[in-house]
Amino acid sequence: MCSSKTPETARERFARNLREKRLERGLSQEHLADLAGVHRTYVGSLERAERNVSIDSMERLASSLELDILDMLIPRSTR
Amino acid sequence: MCSSKTPETARERFARNLREKRLERGLSQEHLADLAGVHRTYVGSLERAERNVSIDSMERLASSLELDILDMLIPRSTR
Repeated sequence: MCSSKTPETARERFARNLREKRLERGLSQEHLADLAGVHRTYVGSLERAERNVSIDSMERLASSLELDILDMLIPRSTR
Repeated sequence: MCSSKTPETARERFARNLREKRLERGLSQEHLADLAGVHRTYVGSLERAERNVSIDSMERLASSLELDILDMLIPRSTR
């Protein structure tokens, strides 16, 4: 879908995977935020790669999506 | 080497991989800290899983070891 060859930063990878996995599950940002115990606007800012998210938060969000933290960092090129 | 079946937290995974990859390269904590532009004591605290490390710091440390952030989160059981 995206033909850019610019490597993603880790933040951008996490942002893209978070959004993709959330949408695959049919969850709104608000619903995911409730599941993970974070604020709705925080999920939005993570999906825009605006925040320097911590490993604990990454793990909590992954668990809320029933995924491993590794699934949240899959590079674009290997999808 | 470790027979424990307790799942590692993401922090513990990162800590273990950071230490293993650093030692594989024969780097001291101080040398890695210099390469990554962080304080030596910070590397030590990360290797003890004491810090809620951020994604940007994880990426910087991975790059300093010429690795991808995914390499820093490899689970114990699949090694």
